[in-house]
Amino acid sequence: MRRQIHLYDTTLRDGSQSEDINLNTPDKLKIALRLDELGIAYIEGGWPGSNPVDVAFFKEIRNYNLKQAKISAFGSTHHPSHTAENDPNLKAIAAARTDAAAIFGKSCERHAREALRLDGRRNLDIIHDSIAFLKKQVAEVFFDAEHFFDGYRHNAAYALEVLRRAHEAGGDVLVLCDTNGGTLPHEVHDIVTAVREQLPEAKLGIHAHNDCEVAVANSIAAVQAGAVQVQGTMNGVGERCGNANLSSVIPILELKSAGAYACLPEGRLQQLTAVSSYVSEVTNLPPFSRQPFVGRSAFAHKGGVHVSAVNRNATLYEHITPESVGNHQRVLITELAGRSNIVSLARRFGFHLDKDEPVVKGLMNELKKKASLGYDYAAAEASVELLLLRKLARRGVREFFKLIQFRVLESKQENDLEPMSEASVMVEVEGIIEHTAATGRGPVNALDNALRKALSSFYPRIREMRLLDFKVRVLTGTETDGGTASTVRVLIESGDADSRWVTVGVSYNIIEASWQALADSMTYKLYKDEHVQRGMTD
Amino acid sequence: MRRQIHLYDTTLRDGSQSEDINLNTPDKLKIALRLDELGIAYIEGGWPGSNPVDVAFFKEIRNYNLKQAKISAFGSTHHPSHTAENDPNLKAIAAARTDAAAIFGKSCERHAREALRLDGRRNLDIIHDSIAFLKKQVAEVFFDAEHFFDGYRHNAAYALEVLRRAHEAGGDVLVLCDTNGGTLPHEVHDIVTAVREQLPEAKLGIHAHNDCEVAVANSIAAVQAGAVQVQGTMNGVGERCGNANLSSVIPILELKSAGAYACLPEGRLQQLTAVSSYVSEVTNLPPFSRQPFVGRSAFAHKGGVHVSAVNRNATLYEHITPESVGNHQRVLITELAGRSNIVSLARRFGFHLDKDEPVVKGLMNELKKKASLGYDYAAAEASVELLLLRKLARRGVREFFKLIQFRVLESKQENDLEPMSEASVMVEVEGIIEHTAATGRGPVNALDNALRKALSSFYPRIREMRLLDFKVRVLTGTETDGGTASTVRVLIESGDADSRWVTVGVSYNIIEASWQALADSMTYKLYKDEHVQRGMTD
Repeated sequence: MRRQIHLYDTTLRDGSQSEDINLNTPDKLKIALRLDELGIAYIEGGWPGSNPVDVAFFKEIRNYNLKQAKISAFGSTHHPSHTAENDPNLKAIAAARTDAAAIFGKSCERHAREALRLDGRRNLDIIHDSIAFLKKQVAEVFFDAEHFFDGYRHNAAYALEVLRRAHEAGGDVLVLCDTNGGTLPHEVHDIVTAVREQLPEAKLGIHAHNDCEVAVANSIAAVQAGAVQVQGTMNGVGERCGNANLSSVIPILELKSAGAYACLPEGRLQQLTAVSSYVSEVTNLPPFSRQPFVGRSAFAHKGGVHVSAVNRNATLYEHITPESVGNHQRVLITELAGRSNIVSLARRFGFHLDKDEPVVKGLMNELKKKASLGYDYAAAEASVELLLLRKLARRGVREFFKLIQFRVLESKQENDLEPMSEASVMVEVEGIIEHTAATGRGPVNALDNALRKALSSFYPRIREMRLLDFKVRVLTGTETDGGTASTVRVLIESGDADSRWVTVGVSYNIIEASWQALADSMTYKLYKDEHVQRGMTD
Repeated sequence: MRRQIHLYDTTLRDGSQSEDINLNTPDKLKIALRLDELGIAYIEGGWPGSNPVDVAFFKEIRNYNLKQAKISAFGSTHHPSHTAENDPNLKAIAAARTDAAAIFGKSCERHAREALRLDGRRNLDIIHDSIAFLKKQVAEVFFDAEHFFDGYRHNAAYALEVLRRAHEAGGDVLVLCDTNGGTLPHEVHDIVTAVREQLPEAKLGIHAHNDCEVAVANSIAAVQAGAVQVQGTMNGVGERCGNANLSSVIPILELKSAGAYACLPEGRLQQLTAVSSYVSEVTNLPPFSRQPFVGRSAFAHKGGVHVSAVNRNATLYEHITPESVGNHQRVLITELAGRSNIVSLARRFGFHLDKDEPVVKGLMNELKKKASLGYDYAAAEASVELLLLRKLARRGVREFFKLIQFRVLESKQENDLEPMSEASVMVEVEGIIEHTAATGRGPVNALDNALRKALSSFYPRIREMRLLDFKVRVLTGTETDGGTASTVRVLIESGDADSRWVTVGVSYNIIEASWQALADSMTYKLYKDEHVQRGMTD
């Protein structure tokens, strides 16, 4: 029998205290709906007493029929100069008309004294009265015991008394907060265990911050010691170093510990990777490729030893099945890796090669040589594929166009804010020469526009593709003159309605490097469309 | 008495198995020297048997006098078809002539069988013979027990037998690897404790991967259970989700657990933030702002409650003193804080301003606006200084030249390997017009050459300066068209015999962004030489 752990997501509240996050009401609604689909039990929408964005959120979310998530409003215990009944903050929480509320109070005597200038006894009464008042208005009231672990170390008897009063007042879950994020997992385990012994009838929760990079471990340690609620955020966003990352806590609870815990409704875990990306998108943060479970690199194998083992049996180097969290395995091509990488790559593209075929060795040498020049094939799978297909030409790839010449001109006059960018391109397609010119926002964009124009008349589907991302990296330490004559690597990500692909170019000349990546990208689009029946995916 | 924990950094080996890291020999040397300054005990330089970059690293690092770090070479146990004595991989390790070596072998019977097709007994002999052979060639030999935790759960007796044979063969530290990163901290603690009971005389190490976001917690759990060596990488880079992040492990060991452990020489911990940035820079990865201890947001307070408490007493919301790891507190961003920043910056450059002067407010607004466009003034202090000096024009800065026009032409013909790059520049200096042209390796280099030529006739000292580094970053999330029309930031580092300086340019046009940074760099050189008496430093 799995023990049910209640997930309490605070992406919309503590998460939005991340330095680089700024959410408006529609953003908050979007995230809340997506979290509900995933199956999160409680969604903390914000602090109704503090700003109009949050007030609007609580009003509008009532227009949606959520599947199972309960919405929670956050706030503090009543102000020392008010009673609970006339405190505007507590009234705002009640007015938010949510299923649940969480209010925080000081559980550390020193904090009560230094931050609020309150004596310990008055602080206890404030906590009791605030919870008792809210319990009349809101079905479930959670007490966030701020600085609990620091408070317990400082004065355990007082910290326990805080919990006791909160429990007596009707607090449904007592959430032990590691507000400053300085507590280690063994301390969390010991303190949660001690609290359970003292207050066996109370339900406990954990709210961990990641200042020591152990917020996930602290959350798991608390669950193992008996906590039933875990607070955290998607992707671990939040004040300072962020909160416990629910996108890691969830799969650990669901997949590890021999099935001791459950936290999502059946069949939802596979949405995890998609939900994480969605939240990245709405919070406007670049996704973190090394993010556990849901990151692009989480199941990417680069080391040659790993690759050859994974080709035999994926579980040899994977701790879970990537698909169980909606992610997938990737095998990367690099100079570290060997012929087995090439074989497995070719297999993905529908070619069955043997590791000992001369073409594999030839390809490996070419890949190694180009990688040592700075071609980043791990990032640019479409360029590898084209290289592979060109080597395997007899098996069916062709060049779609041939460059005759290109020119790019930048000119800036005295009073111009920016230079004028103009490119001309001359290409040959099946004996016909096309010569076009275009302007653009910068030299690469002009070249892109001109090449696209030249090819569109032969291949109208070129118009379906868009360039989505453009990355430039100066490679140091290669054999160049350094400074402005350094080698440059360009990565271009392109996409159409069906898929996305990345191509690479390298040169000391950024225009040339961009040309290589652009030309590969358009060739890939044309090739892909011709071979779509082969069942290729991105 | 603090227990000494030996740090073993594998940024250069396992770290370079990160999907987005690609290091050459000079990069590896730079990182190794910086890690030595920090006080890391062992630096794993690479896998000499696998690629020429690593072979070159081991050769060149011998030319440096390291302070205390020992260099270690990595590799596998001998191939089943060889003996230890005739195994090319083990010979390559010996030929690297390092102080230490780490070799990995299978500690899980299932892995030996499925990945290497070896029976368990033969695997034990291979491990024993490989270590015994290397011990004759290298002072310290560490055994990386691959998949140890999985192996122990599968067949504890066999996993222990692997360690016993490695110990008998002379392995100095038996490193327990959580290769797939699927183990949780309580399991690490229990298994390390059990191993210590079985092999009380052996020294143990831990090598954790971050696939469950608990690699730091696992490393600490192993130390608490008695491990003496911790393997990890700076910033947690590495295969898949990365390795245990030493930039978090180090301050936890040094500052937490009531002084039970030490891992760096006295007085080095304050370098941590700078070393982390340096490694980000050389590995060419964007720094992660929420990174614990060393990230830009690690001590940034945004929530209103936090900010007002922190202003009373920083320790209320900070688990350690930021300065202890070389970081600093940031309070986000009140107008007051902004102005005091400018006053303190101007003071560094020799100007004494008052916070209430209108010029300070004007400058703050301009800096804020340009920062929101992507100018990275934290990296480019010379550009900030010029901005400040231009605002303070009456106090003595002048423009040294005025642009009339520039042109850059790239042209590539059918059979050219690279385009031809040519630039012309027309500038005015004190009423005289100079018009020059130059070619170059790429468009920016051509522009650099032409501008330098134009200015040299007026200011011969321009010939003393060199461009040392050139960085390009495509900025996402700004309001652009995306793709090849994205905004680009260029940072140029220049130097002469006395100092080094960094300037910045931002535009959607890479040529324009480069022009801004180039023009600022040359202006800075000329300004600096005129004001050298003011006692400026770099």
